[in-house]
Amino acid sequence: MFLTDKMRAIVKHHAGFGAKLEMVDIPEIGENEVLIKVKATSICGTDVHIYTWDEWSQSRVKPPYVFGHEFSGVVEKIGSAVLNVSVGDHVSAETHIVCHRCPQCLKGQYHICKETKIIGVDTNGCFAEYVALPAENIWKNHKSMPFEAASIQEPMGNAVHTVLAGDVAGLSVAVIGCGPIGVMAVGVAKAAGAAQVIAIDLNEYRLNLAKNLGATAVINPKDTDPVQAVLDLTDGNGVDVICEMSGHPAAIDQGFKIVTNGGRVSILSLPVKPVEIDITNDIVFKGVTVQGITGRKMFETWQQVSGLLKAGQMNTDAIITHTLPLEEFEKGFDLMMKGQCGKVVLLP
Amino acid sequence: MFLTDKMRAIVKHHAGFGAKLEMVDIPEIGENEVLIKVKATSICGTDVHIYTWDEWSQSRVKPPYVFGHEFSGVVEKIGSAVLNVSVGDHVSAETHIVCHRCPQCLKGQYHICKETKIIGVDTNGCFAEYVALPAENIWKNHKSMPFEAASIQEPMGNAVHTVLAGDVAGLSVAVIGCGPIGVMAVGVAKAAGAAQVIAIDLNEYRLNLAKNLGATAVINPKDTDPVQAVLDLTDGNGVDVICEMSGHPAAIDQGFKIVTNGGRVSILSLPVKPVEIDITNDIVFKGVTVQGITGRKMFETWQQVSGLLKAGQMNTDAIITHTLPLEEFEKGFDLMMKGQCGKVVLLP
Amino acid sequence: MFLTDKMRAIVKHHAGFGAKLEMVDIPEIGENEVLIKVKATSICGTDVHIYTWDEWSQSRVKPPYVFGHEFSGVVEKIGSAVLNVSVGDHVSAETHIVCHRCPQCLKGQYHICKETKIIGVDTNGCFAEYVALPAENIWKNHKSMPFEAASIQEPMGNAVHTVLAGDVAGLSVAVIGCGPIGVMAVGVAKAAGAAQVIAIDLNEYRLNLAKNLGATAVINPKDTDPVQAVLDLTDGNGVDVICEMSGHPAAIDQGFKIVTNGGRVSILSLPVKPVEIDITNDIVFKGVTVQGITGRKMFETWQQVSGLLKAGQMNTDAIITHTLPLEEFEKGFDLMMKGQCGKVVLLP
Amino acid sequence: MFLTDKMRAIVKHHAGFGAKLEMVDIPEIGENEVLIKVKATSICGTDVHIYTWDEWSQSRVKPPYVFGHEFSGVVEKIGSAVLNVSVGDHVSAETHIVCHRCPQCLKGQYHICKETKIIGVDTNGCFAEYVALPAENIWKNHKSMPFEAASIQEPMGNAVHTVLAGDVAGLSVAVIGCGPIGVMAVGVAKAAGAAQVIAIDLNEYRLNLAKNLGATAVINPKDTDPVQAVLDLTDGNGVDVICEMSGHPAAIDQGFKIVTNGGRVSILSLPVKPVEIDITNDIVFKGVTVQGITGRKMFETWQQVSGLLKAGQMNTDAIITHTLPLEEFEKGFDLMMKGQCGKVVLLP
Repeated sequence: MFLTDKMRAIVKHHAGFGAKLEMVDIPEIGENEVLIKVKATSICGTDVHIYTWDEWSQSRVKPPYVFGHEFSGVVEKIGSAVLNVSVGDHVSAETHIVCHRCPQCLKGQYHICKETKIIGVDTNGCFAEYVALPAENIWKNHKSMPFEAASIQEPMGNAVHTVLAGDVAGLSVAVIGCGPIGVMAVGVAKAAGAAQVIAIDLNEYRLNLAKNLGATAVINPKDTDPVQAVLDLTDGNGVDVICEMSGHPAAIDQGFKIVTNGGRVSILSLPVKPVEIDITNDIVFKGVTVQGITGRKMFETWQQVSGLLKAGQMNTDAIITHTLPLEEFEKGFDLMMKGQCGKVVLLP
Repeated sequence: MFLTDKMRAIVKHHAGFGAKLEMVDIPEIGENEVLIKVKATSICGTDVHIYTWDEWSQSRVKPPYVFGHEFSGVVEKIGSAVLNVSVGDHVSAETHIVCHRCPQCLKGQYHICKETKIIGVDTNGCFAEYVALPAENIWKNHKSMPFEAASIQEPMGNAVHTVLAGDVAGLSVAVIGCGPIGVMAVGVAKAAGAAQVIAIDLNEYRLNLAKNLGATAVINPKDTDPVQAVLDLTDGNGVDVICEMSGHPAAIDQGFKIVTNGGRVSILSLPVKPVEIDITNDIVFKGVTVQGITGRKMFETWQQVSGLLKAGQMNTDAIITHTLPLEEFEKGFDLMMKGQCGKVVLLP
Repeated sequence: MFLTDKMRAIVKHHAGFGAKLEMVDIPEIGENEVLIKVKATSICGTDVHIYTWDEWSQSRVKPPYVFGHEFSGVVEKIGSAVLNVSVGDHVSAETHIVCHRCPQCLKGQYHICKETKIIGVDTNGCFAEYVALPAENIWKNHKSMPFEAASIQEPMGNAVHTVLAGDVAGLSVAVIGCGPIGVMAVGVAKAAGAAQVIAIDLNEYRLNLAKNLGATAVINPKDTDPVQAVLDLTDGNGVDVICEMSGHPAAIDQGFKIVTNGGRVSILSLPVKPVEIDITNDIVFKGVTVQGITGRKMFETWQQVSGLLKAGQMNTDAIITHTLPLEEFEKGFDLMMKGQCGKVVLLP
Repeated sequence: MFLTDKMRAIVKHHAGFGAKLEMVDIPEIGENEVLIKVKATSICGTDVHIYTWDEWSQSRVKPPYVFGHEFSGVVEKIGSAVLNVSVGDHVSAETHIVCHRCPQCLKGQYHICKETKIIGVDTNGCFAEYVALPAENIWKNHKSMPFEAASIQEPMGNAVHTVLAGDVAGLSVAVIGCGPIGVMAVGVAKAAGAAQVIAIDLNEYRLNLAKNLGATAVINPKDTDPVQAVLDLTDGNGVDVICEMSGHPAAIDQGFKIVTNGGRVSILSLPVKPVEIDITNDIVFKGVTVQGITGRKMFETWQQVSGLLKAGQMNTDAIITHTLPLEEFEKGFDLMMKGQCGKVVLLP
């Protein structure tokens, strides 16, 4: 099928900083798997953790392997038992490989499966010309969808899962932490009819992105007390919804101060240490609901993402700030580390 | 307080077609009431029923009295026990006067109070220079909101209550029946992030309004089979949400055919006779949820309406097609009867 | 493995009334299938339709084949790819075989899959010594659960799905139609903390069963006007929840009259013809929610059923009124046709 | 109306430990108020705080005044504007006096009103022969309900609000902290169909009460590691629902360890200091929902409480362990401080 059975791939080659572009074998597929020619792949914060070889990566990841998990592509080959996908389909994929046997899977809560494996973390990923994946993880894209936009559906799914975990239309929302997913959360909240979308971050570049995605106000805590600013913007009431995407204890505390009674605090971030929370005053007396958000509902969240993109409700051009050839992945990672980008898309 | 204690008002003066502009007493207020100078008032379909003196009006309404219930204005005077409103406040009002004693009121479901009285139907209304209302029915408007836009919040509340009675963002919605509330439902669905908003009506004028409010497709059943058309627009799946605003048995039946399995059918319309429904195939096997929608949640729906308007998420200019002086009410009712309008606003 | 490769089975042998006990081949299993030794199997209303060869059966069922779909048993053999089940496991099975590809399956709403096949209707069933089933349909039972009780979990799942489709604790519930599933719905409502459980049926035998399962009142419309009776029992308010299990147009109409404003009407029954509904007065003005209920949520409903049984919250002895050897199936069908039974369990 | 205008009352007479039985004036009522002859009144943990004059009391309460807020009684007199209550009605009352003007009140979330005043804390209470209250706070009891049982509806409302803040039927529940409200939470969970109700406390007396109310297992962390014990009881899965009623940081942490992925942690307790929470592992990755619970939904929770009591779903005899004449209040407070009681009811 191929002139050669080798492909270019970004390999996390050793236990340490960085990665290398190498020629590796094109993966084989099993009877329930699919081989995809990758057309676009984007860099996730998790990839940056692996690249910089932080504490979490050291405990979880086993080099050498191909990393990356956000992508779009075209199906090149399918296993003999695959029914849901055809050669030529334009596809992306859900990153979580689930067990189908734990109580959570049995009630359809696959995103919180107790035995989840993650593509590009626990298995070979998509920073490559080809990727082999379980057929059941495949999400089909409309062929009219540009590959770049299609490649960022997975992280957009995180944003959608967080924002749409409760009501938004006509309500006030604060997004705390405007990394790429935070910026997309701003866009989702706006698209879903929020009356106010307040973006909070220390990074002016990203506050600008938030504005481009529809933030009605941006707050830089370096300059302004975010608690007072949000109260001023909401007639003293606070916001109905907090999307916590910063992971910083101080920002989390501020989030609890600015959410109104009966409000919702949806947390997607992963603070590195336990955080002190004033349960009595910030949760109980206020009747607040706190939600832990992880992954994407399979595949309800993907349906919502796809619907929002189809409707043109999200401006993906404002989200994808950089598109680079796969070879320039180091430049992409550099941008991510400096926070001078939205989504960075690599083209294999 | 007034140079004269008389005011201009549209009076339903006798049991028959029509109404008259007359000079009547400015109303007195009780200790829990508020007197409001009406700045803008819009015509509801219910007002047209009263005007044309249909069967329902004959059984419910007792002329002579001042009708009308959609408005905005400025508070002129407050009763001695009123705490929630001040003179000079810009206000509109919830139309349902509730009992506070039935089991529904006791659980906060005021919109389905079993003893509801309706302003402008069971009491004097707002087609006048002044209206006196219970303070607890008052909704305060931001002073920056134009009076015309503010006057249509009550019917927009019906649209919001219907559309936001379940999820919308990223989903497909069909609005069946594009009278003024149907048109607003199109706008609300679009503002709340619907992926598709399909408007269905026999009236081209109103389908055009629906387009202006953001419908992604419009279908005129005179020209096109709406069932087939909707299936074609949705890859054969049908829509996730039906907003039924037509009241026509055939259209209701079509709604049940085009809603997808697990979908929602939210009915605001009031069919004049019982309707045959294929419960087995259209509700049970499809796992469909049917919701009866009436009034507005007090005041959650008003908060949502206010939020959407504040955010500029709804284009009120496209909704309000005609603004007339109060004296020209007959022209306004004429437009409503012919279906050649969106909302018609009268200025006292 | 077997002394013989034949087994006893109740075969729907021809297009007409009845069935025959025959010796048939023990089924083979594929790599994703499981062979189960049936220990107990119960008769469903659907089986009665097939047995009596009604209109629906004539259009759907293809004799000769083994019918039956409610059972418990022990796993005898598993296919080579099966991971979730082991030989010796005590099991029952979900009856719906789903496609995993339609939009409903993709969002985990398997019970309303658009391509559902039904075990014992579209495939060979469990009225036999052995049954072969897809591994993914298997539900594991605690080994302490008696086989008889375990065999009725599937229809109890219908009752649980219906009753627990909304709040019940502290509320008033009417179950209209007290066939075996209706009787179980009475028990589920009681177990889930309903303040009142009113059972309505024309059959005194089944009203007695309802009493045994905890009905706080029983009404026979032959003797008593059920609408007035329910209003009397609820201080004139009506009930919060209707579980419609009769399929009769008059009973459905009564259900809509006795549900209170804001109440829920959950319909599991399958009326044979379209039913006239007074949408305006019975759904819209009352703000009623109507839910179509089919199948069981996979496997959330099974988890609930299992939990209720484990806790002893349901008295299965009161539900299973007859236990017969497989050979006496005709007696079982006779009892079902006469309505002189709760669940009838057959022992192969 | 009275031979004397004085009554016996327990007065928090000075800023310090204790209280005194004194003769005080029978309260006057305003036009929207009601005078009630108290028949039974129960001691709340909040009353113990006031009695022992802890830090919170010192900052909030202004002696001298009559405290107490849980009661049942008979209406003696009503104000001129009162419509919802009549002389002779048997009643209890919601403790929260709300503003009707904040955004929360406006959407019917009265229990989290930002301007709440509390009867018996901020106003005179019910540890007396008579109490005067706003008519809108009154809840009518069925005359068949014993006064003792009726007096504990308010705290039972806290338990009901907590337990029924999500699904319970067929699920596993752990109640952490078995003070009187915890013990009632055990009873509510059992009544609402929980498959397992695991009670955790350091006090054997109260674990025994929990057993009497239906706990399927009790764990004393003095003897047993509660995390391991709960995992053992749930096949390693953990529980679906945590009702946190202890306020202890270590117990809260254990709660987060034993809740299963996708579970619910409903917190009614009021930890005295901020608590460290491992957001990443205990909330985000597990997809847990944390709910702050305060007060009772007005009056939805009261309807549920009333329904459960009416149905005999709760064994109030097992909850009320002591009934004393009002004069012996010191004995009652002593029992509460020692934790050697369920609810203590005083009879004026």
